[in-house]
Amino acid sequence: MTQAPTTPLPGYLPRAGSPLRGRVALPEMRAANMGLLLRRLRSHGGRSRAKLATETGLSKATISSLIAGLADRGLVREGELVRGGAVGRPAQRVSLDGAAVAGVGLEINVNYVALTATTLAGTVLRESVHPLDVLHLDVATVLDRTAAHLRRTLASLCESGVTVVGVTVAQPGVIDYATGALRFAPNLGWRSIPVARELADRLGPDAPHLRLENDAKLAALAEYDQHARHGVRDLLYLTGEVGVGVGIIADGRLVRGWAGFSGEVGHLPLDPAQTPCTCGRRGCWERVVGLGPFLALAGDEADRPRPIEDRLLALRARADAGDPRTLAALATVAGHLAHGLGILVDVLNPKLIVLGGYFASFGDHLVPPVVAALADRRIDPGMTTEVTTSQLGLLATARGGALLALEDVFDDPTIVPPRP
Amino acid sequence: MTQAPTTPLPGYLPRAGSPLRGRVALPEMRAANMGLLLRRLRSHGGRSRAKLATETGLSKATISSLIAGLADRGLVREGELVRGGAVGRPAQRVSLDGAAVAGVGLEINVNYVALTATTLAGTVLRESVHPLDVLHLDVATVLDRTAAHLRRTLASLCESGVTVVGVTVAQPGVIDYATGALRFAPNLGWRSIPVARELADRLGPDAPHLRLENDAKLAALAEYDQHARHGVRDLLYLTGEVGVGVGIIADGRLVRGWAGFSGEVGHLPLDPAQTPCTCGRRGCWERVVGLGPFLALAGDEADRPRPIEDRLLALRARADAGDPRTLAALATVAGHLAHGLGILVDVLNPKLIVLGGYFASFGDHLVPPVVAALADRRIDPGMTTEVTTSQLGLLATARGGALLALEDVFDDPTIVPPRP
Repeated sequence: MTQAPTTPLPGYLPRAGSPLRGRVALPEMRAANMGLLLRRLRSHGGRSRAKLATETGLSKATISSLIAGLADRGLVREGELVRGGAVGRPAQRVSLDGAAVAGVGLEINVNYVALTATTLAGTVLRESVHPLDVLHLDVATVLDRTAAHLRRTLASLCESGVTVVGVTVAQPGVIDYATGALRFAPNLGWRSIPVARELADRLGPDAPHLRLENDAKLAALAEYDQHARHGVRDLLYLTGEVGVGVGIIADGRLVRGWAGFSGEVGHLPLDPAQTPCTCGRRGCWERVVGLGPFLALAGDEADRPRPIEDRLLALRARADAGDPRTLAALATVAGHLAHGLGILVDVLNPKLIVLGGYFASFGDHLVPPVVAALADRRIDPGMTTEVTTSQLGLLATARGGALLALEDVFDDPTIVPPRP
Repeated sequence: MTQAPTTPLPGYLPRAGSPLRGRVALPEMRAANMGLLLRRLRSHGGRSRAKLATETGLSKATISSLIAGLADRGLVREGELVRGGAVGRPAQRVSLDGAAVAGVGLEINVNYVALTATTLAGTVLRESVHPLDVLHLDVATVLDRTAAHLRRTLASLCESGVTVVGVTVAQPGVIDYATGALRFAPNLGWRSIPVARELADRLGPDAPHLRLENDAKLAALAEYDQHARHGVRDLLYLTGEVGVGVGIIADGRLVRGWAGFSGEVGHLPLDPAQTPCTCGRRGCWERVVGLGPFLALAGDEADRPRPIEDRLLALRARADAGDPRTLAALATVAGHLAHGLGILVDVLNPKLIVLGGYFASFGDHLVPPVVAALADRRIDPGMTTEVTTSQLGLLATARGGALLALEDVFDDPTIVPPRP
């Protein structure tokens, strides 16, 4: 969990100045050049000032000035001496640092709050999942407890000398990016809640910048961070809970849609039986691939009082033991999964689909039939799409939130204050 | 047709170094900064060096050096004197030029070849549509005639003192970006043709860089150029010919998919009657919204020997006159259109859908029912999507090709040679 990212997340943030941005206005070109150097050090590793000058076409004086600005903020450090060639003095290597600069991701979901703090250098400083009955508590209580948890974490990071550049709050719903409000989160029963403002008010004026983002989109970012180092730049992450949705990464960039509604695929009209849905329509995809329909098909009535994690473990054991009813339920779900994923493949041509949520518990049973069905409907052999399961579990979304907060630093390193 | 673009096309090209790129390798930072200045002049209009220095944080000496590099290439010009304030000398305004720098787009389609040459300043220098029976001629003959047409155009542009920075060849099929080959274009009957190499061989070593791109993707770029100035950054362009496909612009960037297969929506399984399709599957979307099914429904048997443009005009007249059979056919198509577009809206949340091809001939009859159907299935009032028809006609794709070639200059202005 402390592996440094070896592949950058280049520019998946929307353009500067867009309402989708957190707080970074169009940075000055000097700041932007500092950010470019920082990205280069992240993606290409440490190197001398002379090498950076050669590679970028900037003068050595300009490079030295930019590096000084980054070093003042603890974002780079001077390392061992490197020899450039046979003659001349050895030069110092400049490397990415940021060990004391962190982003925080916090997820508020139906029955838990998850938190991750990660440094620019890729070290996970804090990671926790707290049960919280968000569904049945009133909104103010949830926000009070979440803010208290966040305040404690920020205080302890501050005591350790860590600068937190931003907090991303993840919610299973649609975000109004212009105002930082949650438009609606059907599975929480929340609608039109100004979550960012409410939390900021509770945290006080000294708290780091706080923004809201959708859970599937952040999980997609976290998965992209895992898979980008293997050359994947086009990825879909599918959530599998009560509802389903996708987070879309296209050519290394998060696709949000013009108003943040991208990936709302749970209500695609893909159920031939036209089952009524909570949304008021009929035949929605999540009526046949959501957690509820799967549990109903698998018929684990005796397990019903147990926590959902235990029920999934029991069903996994039954599937591995060859229980016909469980296997039939998984086969049915796999068929409906392939139907919807086939559509997403035709639209977006992803290189990799990552199955999250409850799907991740049944990879051995779901991935092969889905892959076979996708292969079966390919019009061209070049259209292959790989399918895998998420390895990040409940922390995927919070992890994505921390990474999103840190990306601001690569756009404009001057948001990190110089060290005293 | 000669309106200068007032809104930039910021960075819809894939990252530098990607196989999706034309020829521009990761530019030096100096060249990249020249490109940033050029984009700024395009988006913000002419301004003094002092103002550019203030806005970018670069020194006045650096700005002057970068501007000199742009002026040497005819990409900017010195204009009238502007006064910065109450005191000091008046300064010269620097403005985008590029009147002698052009991109060329060439579309090879079923029965015509279209060509557009556009300057960096936004002036259309050449525009033509030539009938060519591509479907029935052998590939070599098509390439011979296309290359001859292109060679004549390039020679006449050269004689006028215009530097052509690149040529984009559009095809109604899937492109192999790594090799510049056409993978397959079902409606041409072409498969695995190294079009870029074949044309480059015919044009000779002095020809500009040539790349291939898909027609729907280029039409989407051309439409984006039209609508971006009104704040649209998320757009879908739907082709409507024998086959249908979409070009996707997400946050100002073209979505190609990992292997170029994005937007292949003609074969989405959306036909409840499960009509067999040429692709071997059943129930494909284009079996109910393509040009063929519409003509069959509208039943214009007597018009069959006439060119397709005339048949569409006649059907348009019948629809406007209230002919029940034509209106019923349009209503059926509108219903199927809304079905598929509803799915695309849930996945991508575009702000605007532009209907091209034959759909554009029937905007009054198709747009209102499609808009109503999309509104009817919205889960949230914020999910609105506008629908309109393309105004660019047969030239949309070639126009997009010319714009794509010109974007290279904004990434790396040094690809334009200094003027003697």
